[in-house]
Amino acid sequence: MANARPDHRLSKRIYDARVPALREQLVQLQVRLKESPAKVLLILAGEEAGGRSEVINTLSGWLDPRGFETVAFREPSDEERERPLMWRFWRCLPADGRLGIFAGSWYTELLRSHDGPPRKPAQTARLVERIRHFEKLLSDNGTLIIKVWLHLSKAEQRTRLAELAANPDTAWRVTPEARRQHRLHDSLARTAARLRKATHSPGAPWVVIDAADSRARNLAVADLIVRKLAAHLKRVDSAPARPPRPAAPKSLKPAGLARLLALPLDQKLSSAEYESKREKWLGRLNRATRAAQTANRSIIFVFEGWDAAGKGGAIRRLTSAIDARDYRVIPVAKPTDEEKAHHYLWRFWRHVPRAGLVTIYDRSWYGRVLVERLEGFCTEPEWRRAYGEINDFEGQLAEHGTIVVKFWMHISRDEQLNRFREREKTVYKRHKINAEDWRNRRKWAAYEIAVGDMLALTDKPVAPWHLIPANNKRHARLQILKTAAKAIEEALGL
Amino acid sequence: MANARPDHRLSKRIYDARVPALREQLVQLQVRLKESPAKVLLILAGEEAGGRSEVINTLSGWLDPRGFETVAFREPSDEERERPLMWRFWRCLPADGRLGIFAGSWYTELLRSHDGPPRKPAQTARLVERIRHFEKLLSDNGTLIIKVWLHLSKAEQRTRLAELAANPDTAWRVTPEARRQHRLHDSLARTAARLRKATHSPGAPWVVIDAADSRARNLAVADLIVRKLAAHLKRVDSAPARPPRPAAPKSLKPAGLARLLALPLDQKLSSAEYESKREKWLGRLNRATRAAQTANRSIIFVFEGWDAAGKGGAIRRLTSAIDARDYRVIPVAKPTDEEKAHHYLWRFWRHVPRAGLVTIYDRSWYGRVLVERLEGFCTEPEWRRAYGEINDFEGQLAEHGTIVVKFWMHISRDEQLNRFREREKTVYKRHKINAEDWRNRRKWAAYEIAVGDMLALTDKPVAPWHLIPANNKRHARLQILKTAAKAIEEALGL
Repeated sequence: MANARPDHRLSKRIYDARVPALREQLVQLQVRLKESPAKVLLILAGEEAGGRSEVINTLSGWLDPRGFETVAFREPSDEERERPLMWRFWRCLPADGRLGIFAGSWYTELLRSHDGPPRKPAQTARLVERIRHFEKLLSDNGTLIIKVWLHLSKAEQRTRLAELAANPDTAWRVTPEARRQHRLHDSLARTAARLRKATHSPGAPWVVIDAADSRARNLAVADLIVRKLAAHLKRVDSAPARPPRPAAPKSLKPAGLARLLALPLDQKLSSAEYESKREKWLGRLNRATRAAQTANRSIIFVFEGWDAAGKGGAIRRLTSAIDARDYRVIPVAKPTDEEKAHHYLWRFWRHVPRAGLVTIYDRSWYGRVLVERLEGFCTEPEWRRAYGEINDFEGQLAEHGTIVVKFWMHISRDEQLNRFREREKTVYKRHKINAEDWRNRRKWAAYEIAVGDMLALTDKPVAPWHLIPANNKRHARLQILKTAAKAIEEALGL
Repeated sequence: MANARPDHRLSKRIYDARVPALREQLVQLQVRLKESPAKVLLILAGEEAGGRSEVINTLSGWLDPRGFETVAFREPSDEERERPLMWRFWRCLPADGRLGIFAGSWYTELLRSHDGPPRKPAQTARLVERIRHFEKLLSDNGTLIIKVWLHLSKAEQRTRLAELAANPDTAWRVTPEARRQHRLHDSLARTAARLRKATHSPGAPWVVIDAADSRARNLAVADLIVRKLAAHLKRVDSAPARPPRPAAPKSLKPAGLARLLALPLDQKLSSAEYESKREKWLGRLNRATRAAQTANRSIIFVFEGWDAAGKGGAIRRLTSAIDARDYRVIPVAKPTDEEKAHHYLWRFWRHVPRAGLVTIYDRSWYGRVLVERLEGFCTEPEWRRAYGEINDFEGQLAEHGTIVVKFWMHISRDEQLNRFREREKTVYKRHKINAEDWRNRRKWAAYEIAVGDMLALTDKPVAPWHLIPANNKRHARLQILKTAAKAIEEALGL
């Protein structure tokens, strides 16, 4: 772990002499950053009275305010509490070309010691894992993560608190909590050092900066940003251009493909049978979703499947069992430019439902390992990473209590052809088919491989895949109703 | 007010025969809507048990789920309560090409009768005014607003509640509140009729639909959407293309221009004087913002001014008095595509601060009546309407308790020239100047007129303009600190 040890007691003269060049470098780098697909996340943590807000204020005076923002995290709002822990951080991540300064972050949560029952070691370990995973995801996505720990010894902290207390404008900052942290300085510092070590990683290393002298501290932080950002932009600039079209895919886990191909598709269900059973399952699904709402559990349905597999129709039947005020259907099409400026999961995190509500994703994050993999919209390392990122995302949802129900609607290639032709013949369905659908159809075998890998690599107990044979629409719809009702009942222990 | 009175007791046979054609029309219209800059807002209100959620579920089954969304408004979240009443509606407005079905809306607030102290007539009148203004703004912006009142007589309501109560799957909906509303049916209906009349307007008319027969009701709502949407798309399609470049502007209110031109710009302030006074005012501003936070009052600073007037520098000095965790600077540049798909105020509503926090807009909604007016980015009716829309927006902020402080930073044309040249000479300032700045400079006189109109038409007691002579940077910065501190102190009664 790097330890930047600036000279103590830097004179104002030297400081003033060095600042203009530093400012110039910072602003120049911001100009370059703005044009790049990189983003910067500066996380400031440290001992009480180490000067986090002074550093931010100083940086604010040096940086171009148009290219950065400070995000402070206080007590979570109710909208935040009703979602997984990391939701509040996802919603505030800097976009491409921007610098986000996080005053408070997941480390506030990790280091929190002063309220509530103490966290168990296993909980701490899980949170550390969560943080490592999140930072790796961001770093892999081109985010430069700079984590600064502003360090004060106990003696220095005492001096600093006394200075703050003596000034009527800053005395308010010496709160009982600050005094408590001072008393516990050494034990807190040991814990913090341990947690820094546990969350120190190549893409998100910690840098400890001595905060005893405020001028030296400010310069050290700015120097660090300049050095890291310059190196990062150089790396980004020299990254190879997007590789050519991917070759025909090879199966990563043939078991998934085998599972897919083994699915029988010739089910029959008469109209009369369907009608008679539908009401029963609609009722059960309705009761199950209401029970989930009463229990403040939210539900996420994921619909994936071949073009024309009947996702839209199935979603309509499913939603007919849910109060229209409780669900939202998110059709996943081309991302907006705000979405494109973030990690691919960002646009899905946006729509994670509040407690007791339902989000239905009509296509989803699985696009990353299907269309994006096959069309070369992302690189091979990107889609290969995605399986793990997705499992982690769904794991966070499940850990929060969200019930995740994923459907793959499966039809045969012949059935798809029938449906495409049918669509072309029906006036009000014609808009549902276009040249791209025909193009995708020609890649059927490649898609089968990608779907198989998806099934094999993201079928987890907390978020299993339900394969729905869908050549027979009625059968598929009924099975979706049944599966949904049972999955919710089981999650609720009904 | 139109009253659609469908035939009672529509047979299932006739219903089933009519549905396919209606569905086809709806989906066809959705396809056209998707390609247009129009948006649709369907507001469903009505007597208890009138079938609002059944109508939405039915429509959901008919519409293409990719082009619409249902938004339900329940109890406001804390993030919503900490902002003006309409914030929660702004954040859920449909974007271009989309249909939003609002289950619950501002009418829920208006019609609310069952908790809290009764609203005073003056409060109701103000809310009605607020609603009329909001709906006009949306309608002027190309939103088709369809407001449906699902009507049930007291006897029909009794029958319907009995049906709901008899079915174990729906009995839960007959809540004590539903029973109370039934008891008070006639008086509530009178109030609702009065409020419908008060909020009936050309751009947002009410349509009362008899809800006694559910099939007839569903068809009537869908028919209404088809009819209104077809007419609306026809109007949008036949609207004239954007007019040519605007002619040289004429002053609407010469008093504003006179005020601008009368501003003396030759202030002096020595470096020593500045240093000595700055600390005092930074301290006062710091205390004032902390007092505002303690009082849960949020603050909005608006910075407008000529290019190179010193907005960035002034903002940096201002923010140095505020804890970095409490403010956010919003640099206003080109809107994102999500922002472009909404009313121009939407992107500013997004950033309205929570209680106790500060948002600093570096340029703002005033772009509508400055650059957009002069460059022809919006039509003349659009920028002319904007003065009233802006006053209403700021009025809502003030009514909510937000302290609004607006600065116009004024420099002479010669001073601008000096600063442009200076920027070109200084390496780390060079990115701040480009060809557009030189182009805008050539339109100085036109801008003066637009600025004058802005000053005259949007200078309101709750959100006054502060003109800052800014040829002398030190003087300008100090005056901004002073003005900000005093404005906050005054708002807080300090």
